[in-house]
Amino acid sequence: MAEQRRGEVASEQSSQEAFRIEYDTFGELKVPSDKYYGAQTVRSTMNFKIGGVSERMPVQVIRAFGILKRAAAEVNQDYGLDPKIANAIVKAANEVAEGKLNDHFPLVVWQTGSGTQTNMNVNEVISNRAIEIMGGTLGSKKPVHPNDHVNKSQSSNDTFPTAMHIAAAQEVNEVLLPGLKKLQNALEAKSKEFSQIIKIGRTHTQDAVPLTLGQEFSGYVQQIKYGVARIESTMPRVYQLAAGGTAVGTGLNTRIGFAEKVAAKVAELTGLPFVTAPNKFEALAAHDALVELSGAMNTVACSLMKIANDIRFLGSGPRSGLGELILPENEPGSSIMPGKVNPTQCEAVTMVAAQVMGNHVAVTVGGSNGHFELNVFKPMMIKNVLNSARLLGDVCVSFTDNCVVGIQANTDRINKLMSESLMLVTALNPHIGYDKAAKIAKTAHKEGTTLKEAAIKLGFLTSDQFDQWVKPKDMLGPQ
Amino acid sequence: MAEQRRGEVASEQSSQEAFRIEYDTFGELKVPSDKYYGAQTVRSTMNFKIGGVSERMPVQVIRAFGILKRAAAEVNQDYGLDPKIANAIVKAANEVAEGKLNDHFPLVVWQTGSGTQTNMNVNEVISNRAIEIMGGTLGSKKPVHPNDHVNKSQSSNDTFPTAMHIAAAQEVNEVLLPGLKKLQNALEAKSKEFSQIIKIGRTHTQDAVPLTLGQEFSGYVQQIKYGVARIESTMPRVYQLAAGGTAVGTGLNTRIGFAEKVAAKVAELTGLPFVTAPNKFEALAAHDALVELSGAMNTVACSLMKIANDIRFLGSGPRSGLGELILPENEPGSSIMPGKVNPTQCEAVTMVAAQVMGNHVAVTVGGSNGHFELNVFKPMMIKNVLNSARLLGDVCVSFTDNCVVGIQANTDRINKLMSESLMLVTALNPHIGYDKAAKIAKTAHKEGTTLKEAAIKLGFLTSDQFDQWVKPKDMLGPQ
Amino acid sequence: MAEQRRGEVASEQSSQEAFRIEYDTFGELKVPSDKYYGAQTVRSTMNFKIGGVSERMPVQVIRAFGILKRAAAEVNQDYGLDPKIANAIVKAANEVAEGKLNDHFPLVVWQTGSGTQTNMNVNEVISNRAIEIMGGTLGSKKPVHPNDHVNKSQSSNDTFPTAMHIAAAQEVNEVLLPGLKKLQNALEAKSKEFSQIIKIGRTHTQDAVPLTLGQEFSGYVQQIKYGVARIESTMPRVYQLAAGGTAVGTGLNTRIGFAEKVAAKVAELTGLPFVTAPNKFEALAAHDALVELSGAMNTVACSLMKIANDIRFLGSGPRSGLGELILPENEPGSSIMPGKVNPTQCEAVTMVAAQVMGNHVAVTVGGSNGHFELNVFKPMMIKNVLNSARLLGDVCVSFTDNCVVGIQANTDRINKLMSESLMLVTALNPHIGYDKAAKIAKTAHKEGTTLKEAAIKLGFLTSDQFDQWVKPKDMLGPQ
Amino acid sequence: MAEQRRGEVASEQSSQEAFRIEYDTFGELKVPSDKYYGAQTVRSTMNFKIGGVSERMPVQVIRAFGILKRAAAEVNQDYGLDPKIANAIVKAANEVAEGKLNDHFPLVVWQTGSGTQTNMNVNEVISNRAIEIMGGTLGSKKPVHPNDHVNKSQSSNDTFPTAMHIAAAQEVNEVLLPGLKKLQNALEAKSKEFSQIIKIGRTHTQDAVPLTLGQEFSGYVQQIKYGVARIESTMPRVYQLAAGGTAVGTGLNTRIGFAEKVAAKVAELTGLPFVTAPNKFEALAAHDALVELSGAMNTVACSLMKIANDIRFLGSGPRSGLGELILPENEPGSSIMPGKVNPTQCEAVTMVAAQVMGNHVAVTVGGSNGHFELNVFKPMMIKNVLNSARLLGDVCVSFTDNCVVGIQANTDRINKLMSESLMLVTALNPHIGYDKAAKIAKTAHKEGTTLKEAAIKLGFLTSDQFDQWVKPKDMLGPQ
Repeated sequence: MAEQRRGEVASEQSSQEAFRIEYDTFGELKVPSDKYYGAQTVRSTMNFKIGGVSERMPVQVIRAFGILKRAAAEVNQDYGLDPKIANAIVKAANEVAEGKLNDHFPLVVWQTGSGTQTNMNVNEVISNRAIEIMGGTLGSKKPVHPNDHVNKSQSSNDTFPTAMHIAAAQEVNEVLLPGLKKLQNALEAKSKEFSQIIKIGRTHTQDAVPLTLGQEFSGYVQQIKYGVARIESTMPRVYQLAAGGTAVGTGLNTRIGFAEKVAAKVAELTGLPFVTAPNKFEALAAHDALVELSGAMNTVACSLMKIANDIRFLGSGPRSGLGELILPENEPGSSIMPGKVNPTQCEAVTMVAAQVMGNHVAVTVGGSNGHFELNVFKPMMIKNVLNSARLLGDVCVSFTDNCVVGIQANTDRINKLMSESLMLVTALNPHIGYDKAAKIAKTAHKEGTTLKEAAIKLGFLTSDQFDQWVKPKDMLGPQ
Repeated sequence: MAEQRRGEVASEQSSQEAFRIEYDTFGELKVPSDKYYGAQTVRSTMNFKIGGVSERMPVQVIRAFGILKRAAAEVNQDYGLDPKIANAIVKAANEVAEGKLNDHFPLVVWQTGSGTQTNMNVNEVISNRAIEIMGGTLGSKKPVHPNDHVNKSQSSNDTFPTAMHIAAAQEVNEVLLPGLKKLQNALEAKSKEFSQIIKIGRTHTQDAVPLTLGQEFSGYVQQIKYGVARIESTMPRVYQLAAGGTAVGTGLNTRIGFAEKVAAKVAELTGLPFVTAPNKFEALAAHDALVELSGAMNTVACSLMKIANDIRFLGSGPRSGLGELILPENEPGSSIMPGKVNPTQCEAVTMVAAQVMGNHVAVTVGGSNGHFELNVFKPMMIKNVLNSARLLGDVCVSFTDNCVVGIQANTDRINKLMSESLMLVTALNPHIGYDKAAKIAKTAHKEGTTLKEAAIKLGFLTSDQFDQWVKPKDMLGPQ
Repeated sequence: MAEQRRGEVASEQSSQEAFRIEYDTFGELKVPSDKYYGAQTVRSTMNFKIGGVSERMPVQVIRAFGILKRAAAEVNQDYGLDPKIANAIVKAANEVAEGKLNDHFPLVVWQTGSGTQTNMNVNEVISNRAIEIMGGTLGSKKPVHPNDHVNKSQSSNDTFPTAMHIAAAQEVNEVLLPGLKKLQNALEAKSKEFSQIIKIGRTHTQDAVPLTLGQEFSGYVQQIKYGVARIESTMPRVYQLAAGGTAVGTGLNTRIGFAEKVAAKVAELTGLPFVTAPNKFEALAAHDALVELSGAMNTVACSLMKIANDIRFLGSGPRSGLGELILPENEPGSSIMPGKVNPTQCEAVTMVAAQVMGNHVAVTVGGSNGHFELNVFKPMMIKNVLNSARLLGDVCVSFTDNCVVGIQANTDRINKLMSESLMLVTALNPHIGYDKAAKIAKTAHKEGTTLKEAAIKLGFLTSDQFDQWVKPKDMLGPQ
Repeated sequence: MAEQRRGEVASEQSSQEAFRIEYDTFGELKVPSDKYYGAQTVRSTMNFKIGGVSERMPVQVIRAFGILKRAAAEVNQDYGLDPKIANAIVKAANEVAEGKLNDHFPLVVWQTGSGTQTNMNVNEVISNRAIEIMGGTLGSKKPVHPNDHVNKSQSSNDTFPTAMHIAAAQEVNEVLLPGLKKLQNALEAKSKEFSQIIKIGRTHTQDAVPLTLGQEFSGYVQQIKYGVARIESTMPRVYQLAAGGTAVGTGLNTRIGFAEKVAAKVAELTGLPFVTAPNKFEALAAHDALVELSGAMNTVACSLMKIANDIRFLGSGPRSGLGELILPENEPGSSIMPGKVNPTQCEAVTMVAAQVMGNHVAVTVGGSNGHFELNVFKPMMIKNVLNSARLLGDVCVSFTDNCVVGIQANTDRINKLMSESLMLVTALNPHIGYDKAAKIAKTAHKEGTTLKEAAIKLGFLTSDQFDQWVKPKDMLGPQ
């Protein structure tokens, strides 16, 4: 069976019947006729058979490259690039940006650590597609050369990190932040809905003094609200683009103003406030901005883990759990236990949280290991950052739609637990002191009686005093 | 552009024109006519729109499920399951095991943390395929019911962890260990090839006393060799299967002997030494065995990071680096710097290493958060374990084939560096003491002279004594 | 207040009034008269003012060095070292090994990554103490020289990793494994004690089919038992000593047989099966063995997190939690809520677990970043490994003594929850099929009735059949 | 020897001869006569024998508690607390804040996860010291009761997180940020000093196009500058104090305005902009603010790892490394290799970086595991946050003073490497195209000639053209 299993790898590299010949500085290679990519792309598929199809460079990076290449072509035209060539590049790059050519990007993440081969994949696809638009021959590199025209004033070393930042910023703005805000709003609505429901608090997982269910949910709201703030506070550095730094950050082979114009063009195309990075050496050699963003997502993961854990425990039961919340029933819960319903959305949330924490360590290790003028963990880093942003954003939407909005308070259960609680004794502290209050609680616990019974039995106060001092409603805030 | 980008998600869930109606305990659902899966699978695709196609349950898990369901059907037949039904299940399960039905498993990892929906996806596909084989109507659940027949004597809670262990063990044996051993052999061959080449050692990244290049590589060999041992030492616990524990580990609704027979059958089908887990409660509620395996892979990642770092630094240059190794040139290295060749295989290795370290943290967090009778981070955990095993195995092969076997020693450079080294002074310690030897080295360093010149100038020894005592060849081992 | 706070650092470096002059190859330095250490130690305290007293090199490393230096001196005597000098070194080293000279080791972990300065600290202390024993003058380096005699046939590069392995192995054997085994035994006793108590199971934190409380605890027993096995399976590589490799692994300046004899001597002194590392290059340049050990401890941390979480949730209440376990009351639980008792031992366990997971990442990052012939994250790595071993071992003892042995089952509560459970319906699957069983459970849940009532109402079975088929006692294992 | 080693633990708990009797709600206990702490503290030392002296609660937390307790007493006086009692508390609390009573805080981190016992330790010490000031009897709880007076309007659940935030904010402002800024300034000075030194760039660790050494250092400056910004951007949430939330966040048993006044008072005492947390439920149940701060420190760790790695590799040699930088010689580098000097400060930096990454994972795991109204990983979390802040701050100072300020450029070596470089060929791209330029570089590499020789030989350009086009000075920026 082992051979069969390995077979799936082979099929990924299946021999195309129709091909053309292209070449790079290393020699000739057969390229499938129906693909726009060229020799360097083919060479990379031969040299890096690692992980298979699911490990391909994220499509967000490819599309960000399309945006960048279009911007660069337009700016290059300002600096003298033949408008016909520029126009063809812009058109082809736009197709890449729109995701129309996704099938032409077969390379995996596990390639050169600078992403050079993906940059060349992009250059080759755009050059060949532009050649096609202009009526030329695929693979001829004429009239549009992948290096001399498509990559003009660029290097992999500045384009790949630029594409990383564009892709990350878009995923954050289009998936992560909307997801978080949706969840925040849903939790806020629940917090208001539950504002009058007084319930037992729990600290150390043990019974504690009361609060409202709305107050409990308000803590979740605050966590997500701050999560949004955390993500946003890291974005100024993500909006800085390396483009214009070329090979080592000096901007060799670019023109003065190129960097600023490209950033402005990308900002225009995306609607996001991109600017050129003030120091290109840092922008190529380190990806601290992505480590920082990943750190903010890691914090969000902690928040989500906490919230989802609470909700599944508060919704545990139906008869042997805490049972304070009734969670929506979305699917049959068990293949063996009929009628079982599980907090499956909470489980997806917590699994995503764990993944984001893991992704963060991968990003951290990669981010710390740059050397000299270039960090060469780029594809791995952006893969993980994009994965975290997408999973967090998606799971917030799923959690909101399929769980949070449908959460109901089990008020009977909540009232029952609250009224039996021993921790209401805390309200007596200001009146009879901590030590006596402790004795009341311990007595009631040991004898299985109510606090009031124990208090009176111990002679620490009267029945009236108890009723006057121990009112859950009065325990919900300072006085 | 945002709408377009989200569009790709929508297309994943594209509306099929032809469908049939299936139902689960929650109601009716439309199922695409050309798919074997049923209502619960469709329901899960609606409830968990998280991450898209690249986040699907790893195919290795699906195939492992095929093996398990076949084994269970055969054993169930022993206990009385109608042979016609059993045979149909076996045949259908085999197709799943062979990967022929991969298109029928659309669910993502981010679902129920027990993998229940994937177990049901498997049950539905096998049931419908078996129904088809027996001439029945898809979706009728007759004559082969997904729960009552395909899932007989099983629960998601024991089948999913069983599939996890089967998949992990197979990936380890078919991809990871062969990859590591291949690399070990290649490094060992290089160690022998380089056994006579004396070179400068480096500690703290600074010049140190000499060793042979073969000795240096022997350290890498040892790391990988121990890596194999480390992985293997964790496997006894991975070979333990949860099957037979059903819902909570008690084995409710199974027959005495079922667990043992299923494990034996799986062992037979896979050729791997699976046994039934001695304690099913542990096998469902914790996945320490996978955390442990992941920890061993994390150690291997450290080894690979070290080796790949060494090789790229030793091969750095061509003119301004250490330059002791000549690495194979596999592709053009730069889109802007013509003629540049980079240690790209080393970069893939180190990126994989970082990913494995990150995956390990995700596995650890998931592994630590089980509650009561069930850990519900199962799909996330196995995804990461399989990813680590696959990436490590693949990258070892790629690194070996495209780099290690082609490494050449740059003997001119090696000899030059070695002969100029100041650290050969260490050979004088036993003769003139540490303090005097230090003075010689410091003098030579400051004055830019050779050690011998400095030694004689300082009057600590004669020229003959120097030649007699300072012989790199004599510095390669104890005396 | 800032100045005051920084003042505490200054006081760590307080000016001694009485001092002597010592020198190293860099010049003269004042050494406190009442200390055995010398110039290199003083110099390190000046160069590395990082972290303060709590960041000192762990005493276990210092003591391991004492063992090693004694062993080396005895072996050096075999190879010709003056017996008087050897004897004095042995005596002084023994005092270090016994912890009698701990005050003479002021250096912090955050020094040279090879631990060179701690090795020199040891050499200086032993040399001066040996000089004192022999009647010489402190700081004279006569008749016992720190480098030429105490460090004879050694380098920091092989002695420090040797001390790391000795210290780790001792901590594992003296603290970690005894702690784990003690906890295993206590859990096992509880598992037996609770073997007849049938309780509701919980999966997905939700009600599931029953098991015994003894079975539940048996899962914990298995986790810890495997934890012991995991630790032990990594020890063969920890028992390998680098001693004899000297500066780069070649064994320069040692004698043939030295490495083996030192390892044998260390084995004799410690009673642990130390051997010489088969490949010294690996033993200096990588610390995979410690990454591996740390990985095993990380797995143990996951186990403990799971167990402690379960126990605190099962013991939650007293009135609004699950309440199945009664945990020992060890201290007042709250400074504001009188009478509150918290699962504080569980909290210490889970905090330790989190710390061990963090330590493991530190060890992993350090372990992956060795270069060429030397890993220079040695002090950091061993600090974290020792911390994990000590904390895990200690917390197991604390948890056992102060919590596990005193756990009582709250049988009234357990029985009540079990009898009300809807998931007993699972026992009906083999009799009436999954779909009908599901309807019964859902009906009972919606109408708040018992399963039996719902089953009869739906007409799926008779009262007698229900009583015959739904027996918790019969649901505890296969049939 | 095992017994001896465990002996050190026993000695930590040595029996005091003189003692007094104190009691808590659990009973009587012997308290050492010379200590201010009381029964609950003693009880904790008995229940949590975990890790020993080095694992004590960080003194920064104790001192922060002193500040908080003083602030609370002053505010309580506004609300009616007897001024004599308040004054005595203020005086005693001040002594705690000043670190004068550090010896009275024996508890370890590994205690209750809410830090309750440390809060009580503080309450006991302040109460007894205040009693002493007022002429009362230690242990009498009169006239100053630890709970009723010192802890008035407080709970461990809000005081401990308040102390966490105060301690973290102070460490950040007094140690971390000053350290980072000092390093930033030193790097900036070097960047200017080196602004005219043109050197070879390195990407993928391989030769690349030139830049100035000043440009290279400017990247480091930017990293640290952003590091400061990253830390600062997290502080608004660290400046929010939980005080006033009491047990579960409602503020039970406090007075309206108490929370705001305490925060204002703490701000006044510390000179830092503390405010009351807008949502106390979040402030008790989650510590996302510390996870966030830890994430920023994790990013800084990545920056430092990169910079220190660069500097040690650029300073590698003296004869067989890159040798472009001359690092200060601070101490003898080797106990066996005389005259060796190592980049020890870089090693301390990278070890600290690894530790901070590990600490961050511990903080993350703890931060994600809060339940309901309280996170109970508090002591572990703050220990790690403070450790990271202190180590980073201290190591920046050490690195600056002992390495960065003394770095010299080895201009001879730099010039030699630069002039020989093949990558200067990149300057020809705009003139002759990428493909021809590549041929020149490859030819020169294979034949060991200069670029110019190869270019002319290949007939691609004239000698004059080469000299005109290939000028390192013109390759340092866009044109």
